[in-house]
Formats: sequence, C-alpha cells, structure tokens
Amino acid sequence: MTLIRIALDAMGSDNAPQVEVEGAALALQDLPPGFRVQLVGRPPAIEGALAAFPGIDRARIEIVDAPDVVGMGEKPLAALRSKPRSSIMVGLGLQKEGHSDAFISAGNTGAVMAASTLLLRLHPGVQRAAIGALLPTATQPVLLLDAGANVDCDARELVGFAQLGAVYARDVLGRPQPVVGLLNVGEEDEKGSGVVKEAHHLLRGATGFHYVGNVEGRDVPTGEARGRPLDVVACDGFVGNVVLKFYESAAKVFVKLLKQELPDVLQRPEMGNVLRILDYATYGGAPLLGVQGVSIICHGSSPAKAIKNAIRVAVQAVSSHLSQDIGVEFAQGGVTA
Amino acid sequence: MTLIRIALDAMGSDNAPQVEVEGAALALQDLPPGFRVQLVGRPPAIEGALAAFPGIDRARIEIVDAPDVVGMGEKPLAALRSKPRSSIMVGLGLQKEGHSDAFISAGNTGAVMAASTLLLRLHPGVQRAAIGALLPTATQPVLLLDAGANVDCDARELVGFAQLGAVYARDVLGRPQPVVGLLNVGEEDEKGSGVVKEAHHLLRGATGFHYVGNVEGRDVPTGEARGRPLDVVACDGFVGNVVLKFYESAAKVFVKLLKQELPDVLQRPEMGNVLRILDYATYGGAPLLGVQGVSIICHGSSPAKAIKNAIRVAVQAVSSHLSQDIGVEFAQGGVTA
Repeated sequence: MTLIRIALDAMGSDNAPQVEVEGAALALQDLPPGFRVQLVGRPPAIEGALAAFPGIDRARIEIVDAPDVVGMGEKPLAALRSKPRSSIMVGLGLQKEGHSDAFISAGNTGAVMAASTLLLRLHPGVQRAAIGALLPTATQPVLLLDAGANVDCDARELVGFAQLGAVYARDVLGRPQPVVGLLNVGEEDEKGSGVVKEAHHLLRGATGFHYVGNVEGRDVPTGEARGRPLDVVACDGFVGNVVLKFYESAAKVFVKLLKQELPDVLQRPEMGNVLRILDYATYGGAPLLGVQGVSIICHGSSPAKAIKNAIRVAVQAVSSHLSQDIGVEFAQGGVTA
Repeated sequence: MTLIRIALDAMGSDNAPQVEVEGAALALQDLPPGFRVQLVGRPPAIEGALAAFPGIDRARIEIVDAPDVVGMGEKPLAALRSKPRSSIMVGLGLQKEGHSDAFISAGNTGAVMAASTLLLRLHPGVQRAAIGALLPTATQPVLLLDAGANVDCDARELVGFAQLGAVYARDVLGRPQPVVGLLNVGEEDEKGSGVVKEAHHLLRGATGFHYVGNVEGRDVPTGEARGRPLDVVACDGFVGNVVLKFYESAAKVFVKLLKQELPDVLQRPEMGNVLRILDYATYGGAPLLGVQGVSIICHGSSPAKAIKNAIRVAVQAVSSHLSQDIGVEFAQGGVTA
C-alpha cells in the first residue's frame, strides 16, 4: 500500500489547533494504517496541542510551518494575497508540489475554495468546482451538490455537478451505480426554472450513472425518489446552501427541544438511530469536487470526530483515485459532449 | 359584525368531500361566530358527507352546485378551460361576483393559483401573486414566500413578496411591526446571486416594515435573525418550494423514526412542544397573496383540522381587510416607488 499524506490545516477551526490535533490523534488510532498527517500551522501552537496526546504516533505526524492564519471574517482573495504563508496556502501548496495527497481545512470556506481552485486548478472540462455535502436521510446518506460554491449556475454547470457527484458516489461512498436526481419543484418534465428545465433535458442523455429525473425537496430527507435509493442530488449553490444550513439548524433546534422537554429520553440507547439523522459530525467534511487533487472543507465549529472523519474521507478519496477518475470522466466529455 | 362568507372547495382534497365537511363542522363548532361556509361541489356527495354530522348548524352552511372536479394530475389551464363549472371556478366565481369573501381549496394547486389570478386579478402594482407558507420554528411561526408560485423571479418581484408578507404578518399574524429578511447564502451585502443582491439593495430602502437584511437557511428554523424575532422571509418560489417540501418531509421522517424507536415517548405530554414544530396541520393553509380577494391553498393530504384552521385564517384575512390593505400598500408604490 502506498503511503497517503493528508495535509491538515491546524489553524482553521474555531477551536484550533486543539480540535485538529485531537482529530488527527483519533484518526491515527481508529483508522486503518497507510496514511500520515501533515499538521500545517504555527509549530509552537501545534506542539502545545500535541502535548495533550502523549500516546500519539509521532512517526506518522509531520509539522509544517505556516506562520499566517486567514480569519473567518476575512475576504478570501484579499486574505490569500496578503498572507501567502497562511496555513491554507502552505497546505495546498504541498499538494501542488507533489508533497501531499489531500488537504483538509475547517477555516474560512471562501478562502479554501479560492486557494484550491488557484493552486490545484480545475480538471480540463470542469466548468466550476462544487462543494458536495453529505446529508443524513432516513436511509443512506445523500450527496447534495453544489452546497454553496456557485450561486448563479447555468444548465451545463448543473450537469457537471451531477457528473462530479456520481464519480464521488462511486469512489468514496462505494455506490457502483449511482442514482442521481435534479432538485426541482416537481417531478414533471415541464416543471422548474428555465435553467433547471434545460439541465433536466441534458441529463436525460446522461451515461455513467442512472439519472432518475427531477426530485423534490421532500425526496432528500427520505433518501428515495420514485422508489429508488437516491445517491446524488444536483442543484445550484444557492438552493444547496440554503437547504444545507436549514437542515443543520432544524436538527439543532430539534435536539435542543428534546433536551429541554425530555432530558431522560436523550440518554436512551434507541435515541441513537433517531439522532443519527441529525448528527453532522459523522460525515466530517465536504469535498470541493472538480479540482485536480483532494480538498475537503469542514465546518468552523467541527468537533474532533468530524476532523477524524474528514481524514477518513480524504484517505478514501486518495486511495480510490477520485481526482483521476473525475479527470477521466470530464476528458471524455460525459453528458455535455 | 358583518357576515363573512367562506367558500370551501368540497371536492379538492385526497379525501374529499369527507375531510372538507368535517373541517367545516369543526370550524362552526370551535371558531367564533360571524361566518358561514359555502360548500362548493357535487350536492349529493356533500349531503352524504354532512350526514355524518347531524349536530352541524345547517343555517350557517350553503351548498353551491359545481358538477366538475379538477384532478390533481391535470394541467391547470387546460383543466380550467375544459371545466368551467369545476368547484374551483365556481367557488372563485362566487367571490368575483360579490357573493363570497374568501375561497379555500385543497385541490390542484396550479389550478387554484391560475383560477385565482384569472378571476380575482392582481392588485394594481403587484407583479406576481405569491404563496405564503407559515413554517413552525423554535419560536413564533415564520411566513416564507414565495413558496412555489413563481420559479424565475427578478429583484423587484422579490421585493414585492417582502411587501405582501409584511401586510399579511400585520393583518393575519398580528405582528404590527413585521421583521422581514431576504433568504440568502450569507449575511454580508455582497453575498448571493445577482437577483438577490439587487433585491437586498432595494429592500434597504423599504418602509412599512423592518428589513433585517439577508438571512440564511439556518435562521428559518430558529425563527430569529441577528437576535430579532423573524416574521417574514422572502425568496423566489424555487428555493421556497424546495425548503417547504424539505421541511415537511424531514419532520415526517423524524416523527416516523421516533415512533419506530421510542413508541412510548410519543405518548408523553412533553412531546407536545417538540411535535409542535413538526405539525403542519396547525397552520392549515397557504394564502395566495397579491390577488384582489382571499384565496387559500391547502395540501391535498390535509386533515380536517387543517381545513378548520384554513377557515380560521380566511376569516381573519377577511375581517382584517388583508386584501384591501395589500391594495393600499401597492397603490402607494411601497419600496419600488
């Protein structure tokens, strides 16, 4: 097995670098071997956080010096320009130079997207990179994309998101024949905005995945459309972002209400299955799909478990050759040929 | 108190006319007096359903003959043209002729929207009628509009939805100083699609309500934005429809999971507060705002309780002069002047 090198932005999250270091420690303990973690950031801070994990396998950890940190509130492009030695730029730079295989950050999402596109570049044929968000459902998790990278999209871009999602579903989620739906306001061919109607028309000629047609908002939480398990739902980044944030917030409101009204019930083992569909930490991070490489974006509020799971996803993405497979898919032209 | 006449499409829902008749019976029993119900549909079917409610006050019920029924799957305009004596056309015709004050239907949504616009017409200055959906939140219900009437919207139309929602919040929800947000992917001025950015700019000059600025998907379930209780959220009908259907479905999935895993817990009285945010029947119906008159659209699967609540909303809309107030708001030009 080839060694897989995961660069982790140690300065990204709201609780950096403690959470990142704990996530790395969990990953090294729980996940199969074959990978190393490159902690990118300010060495003294990272060393300080590592002191809390004396049992950690230091042979599998490398500290990479990056003195600057991009703040959550900073404007992405300006921040990247003024801080070329930020943990985001240094971490992605490692991958660009061939010294790393994947990058993970819980930092400024806009800056991670911009730097990923800038340094790794898009695969030829990919019009826009998209954020894929894995949503828990009543059945299997569904990949929703774009979850916020692109707010104004044309029909061909929506088709591209469907293709990107299908490759991810095959390589990372282990679904050999992915079922892909287009998010719309109704199932019928004539439903939707002009852009979505055109995308539906184009997707009907799709190969490489099963296009199940238009799906509605209601089909996402059930994880099914027309009796078939759904793997990927394509939409523009505006509606995807709204749905993702809406879901996360509704889940939080619900757990808070349960805690308030029925504190004893939350402790019961049967709650596990109920809370599973409310627990985002399980899924860890959202991949930025379409770039030449692997870049995974986590919530600023990610707990260590989410960082660990993002590392798991990154390892899976690298070992399944996700980026190469996306390159092949788009080089062939896919649906848009 | 003037008499208020509510025309109820008795043939609309999946369980018509039983559910409609039961809803009317509940309304006559539970709601304050001062209104009558006009049951519009096939008299023998309506009489048959009424037989189950021998105690109902027949003096407050009128049966209006409409021999045709528009099916759920029919194309709206074609159905209205070929069935001029459908319960939808007859019920709205009563209002147009001054023989009724409001119309309620759980039938084909597209047909109800088209017939409402056709027969009642829009108020001068209103560009598009919008469906307002009342969403349960952790705090007070929030009116989301447009919830599906218009999939492609320009900035001025979004501003119009904000205005329509604000009048509804004042008149029907009893919120004298409504707080209105624009659904977007971030709070900052520069966030969003071109159309939404322009709408945000226009709304900053709004009068007649407090424009709180861009709100995100996460602010809807909490019912708050920047520490203020939120009354109205404006968006295009594509994203509104997706969010509404997503929420309804997520709520159903959650209740189903709770039933399956913790059947005893659902029986506990404390669950009331938890289920409240999942129970759509409480809110009853979605008003079509912007027409000259009152038209309320219910789910095809509405239970009797939802029909009763739609009647309550219709009575409130008529007695608060909602339609007249919308007319005044738009005659003055409002934000778009």
